[in-house]
Amino acid sequence: MGSGTLDLLSRRGEQIARSIGARLQVRRVLVRDPSRRRALVIPSDQLTTDPATILDDPTIDVVVELMGGENPAVDYIARALSNHKHVVTANKEVVAKHGPELLNLANRNDVNLFYEASVGGGIPVISVLRHDLIANDITSLRAIINGTTNFILTAMEQGRSYDGALGEAQRLGYAESDPSNDVRGIDAAYKLAILSTLAFRTNVRPSQIGCAGIERLRQKDFQHATGMGYVIKLLASADVGPNGIVASVRPTLIPISHHLASVKGVFNAVLIDGDQIDKFMLYGQGAGARPTASAVVADLCAVAHNLQRGVIDRVEIARQERPIVDPGDMLSRYYLRLQVADRPGVLAQIAQVLATKAISIASVMQHETDETTGVAEIVIMTHAALDRDSEAALTEIRRLEAVREISAMLRVER
Amino acid sequence: MGSGTLDLLSRRGEQIARSIGARLQVRRVLVRDPSRRRALVIPSDQLTTDPATILDDPTIDVVVELMGGENPAVDYIARALSNHKHVVTANKEVVAKHGPELLNLANRNDVNLFYEASVGGGIPVISVLRHDLIANDITSLRAIINGTTNFILTAMEQGRSYDGALGEAQRLGYAESDPSNDVRGIDAAYKLAILSTLAFRTNVRPSQIGCAGIERLRQKDFQHATGMGYVIKLLASADVGPNGIVASVRPTLIPISHHLASVKGVFNAVLIDGDQIDKFMLYGQGAGARPTASAVVADLCAVAHNLQRGVIDRVEIARQERPIVDPGDMLSRYYLRLQVADRPGVLAQIAQVLATKAISIASVMQHETDETTGVAEIVIMTHAALDRDSEAALTEIRRLEAVREISAMLRVER
Repeated sequence: MGSGTLDLLSRRGEQIARSIGARLQVRRVLVRDPSRRRALVIPSDQLTTDPATILDDPTIDVVVELMGGENPAVDYIARALSNHKHVVTANKEVVAKHGPELLNLANRNDVNLFYEASVGGGIPVISVLRHDLIANDITSLRAIINGTTNFILTAMEQGRSYDGALGEAQRLGYAESDPSNDVRGIDAAYKLAILSTLAFRTNVRPSQIGCAGIERLRQKDFQHATGMGYVIKLLASADVGPNGIVASVRPTLIPISHHLASVKGVFNAVLIDGDQIDKFMLYGQGAGARPTASAVVADLCAVAHNLQRGVIDRVEIARQERPIVDPGDMLSRYYLRLQVADRPGVLAQIAQVLATKAISIASVMQHETDETTGVAEIVIMTHAALDRDSEAALTEIRRLEAVREISAMLRVER
Repeated sequence: MGSGTLDLLSRRGEQIARSIGARLQVRRVLVRDPSRRRALVIPSDQLTTDPATILDDPTIDVVVELMGGENPAVDYIARALSNHKHVVTANKEVVAKHGPELLNLANRNDVNLFYEASVGGGIPVISVLRHDLIANDITSLRAIINGTTNFILTAMEQGRSYDGALGEAQRLGYAESDPSNDVRGIDAAYKLAILSTLAFRTNVRPSQIGCAGIERLRQKDFQHATGMGYVIKLLASADVGPNGIVASVRPTLIPISHHLASVKGVFNAVLIDGDQIDKFMLYGQGAGARPTASAVVADLCAVAHNLQRGVIDRVEIARQERPIVDPGDMLSRYYLRLQVADRPGVLAQIAQVLATKAISIASVMQHETDETTGVAEIVIMTHAALDRDSEAALTEIRRLEAVREISAMLRVER
């Protein structure tokens, strides 16, 4: 990411200078190992391994943080802001976990902290929320904001196994060797926290976001989904409900006619509902060196334009005014796939548990029994129910003697 | 549109003041007839019929122009800018035809002219091009930017006749009683001129944009398109080609898997190809009082934020540095539907004409002959050819004695 940004700054220096009336000059580049061979040649007097030569140098106006991870990045950013330097970062973890405090720190030091590249790569969703939708009351966000999982889910939709798809994502560099942050939905939750905080003008923390991953999805789920006219996506959702904001990241069945259903592979998309604009969607490359560099340099240009005019952007700090509701409060339809002993009365038992939680069944499919094991697979689609009721029903169903396995419980989006 | 903006300003005044640190105050509202009953009550001391009480009042900082049409709007805007007032406008015709001159005038008077609402209603494509994609070299634009025609084409796709669909658009208020500007592609060409000027950083005038309308499309074209896996859209296209920029607005066959194929009804979408972000799309409500007000108020907030800090935005004036190429230079595939006498050798004659222009045929369909008239319908899909060669071939084909009518010649997008 660092190389992509440096490369772009050097290639587009002239054009940027014409546009904003100021020239960006790279002073120092912090690296772990200065002797490493790099695709991009960095003059040796720019390379440093000592963060202080950047963070504490009073002649440096802007610090670009592209190291990733929470530590030491959060300390570096705080130190840069405290030293009256503007900061541009692509660090979703730091912004999601510490954004409100860092933005306060920036305000107190009369500098700006910009973080367009932290969500959606080249998709300028932060800027759109901050500036362009300023007059809107935003009521809902729906997003596919993790390219790794969307790549895996797209491959599974085309018939690959989970392990096969993950392996391919790793070979192509879309997934890390330890893919947990992506496949468990943690990365998407960071990004949703950032988007929700901006959209709803209140601090939404990653810990307040209900989170489920894609690891347990199997080919069968994709086959059932396809048969019923759905695709499966890792959907990040946030809504303003009657009791407060509800936010979650979960594998979700989405109707094939839905705006987000056609988002394939590593692409990302964010669908925003505002009271003025109605439905609005941004779609594009959610990651990669070039799209990220595009976002970082756009932020740098905004900083430079301000520096040149001697001003900063006013940034409204979200005040914790809206309650964040437990994801259990979320109302949605569910897809349930389970393995049961093939004998009379089992479906009635399951239906009975659902009925006691006031969850009504929309459809049931029971497939041919596996004769060798005597196990039948049942797929149930429910009408809208509260997340906590569905979870409670699931716990009871799991206890039923005839139930061998609950293979999947997925949200269903309208 | 004026009412929508006034209404939004009054409802969101507090929120906007918190965000930008300044309060927007409506001073005067220019109307034709102050006695008319309005949905929104405007205090009588704000109403005026005399433009001078706004344009020449030194206590007014910003003028919002929402009257539409070229005249007298262009003069009002110029007078406001000359009097050192910032201007926010939704006027695509004025910006498309006079944008470069008005932006120069604004620069000379140290004020800004903002025009987010002139293209795409609530879709912030101007802002994205101006700020967020600043580091990109944009190579191509594809857009559905006229809601009226997209509504008509969507209805025709569902089986309506052209006249029936137009009538429905008029009843619903999506089309004016004289729909020429929309159905002939003129409105879309204004918007494409504005987008191309920003995207390619060179002045593109509406007169340089090749323009064709949808009036001659018939049900049969939609049936053939559907059968071959296409939809028909009024596509605004602009590309950086080897000889310069080529821009046009034409009814076009788009593969159903294309990003823009699923844009239905009055929705708009803009697909941008940039060298950093690759494919990027914005999708949303392209017109209407509320989306337009959202864009106007976002511009007003940007102006107010600047006023409060005593600065203006630097706006780079495009210099006429890239040639604009005649649309005849555009290379694309074509769909050709024609009525011919059903006798031996006719198809050979047509194929011969195409061959002399080096246009190669990709597929031919000849349908059952109408026995009463002896006329057969032929649909030809060509491989890529220059627009001027296709036009020249068409002129020759029209002259063939056996050719009764050329019913349609449409671009085909990959």
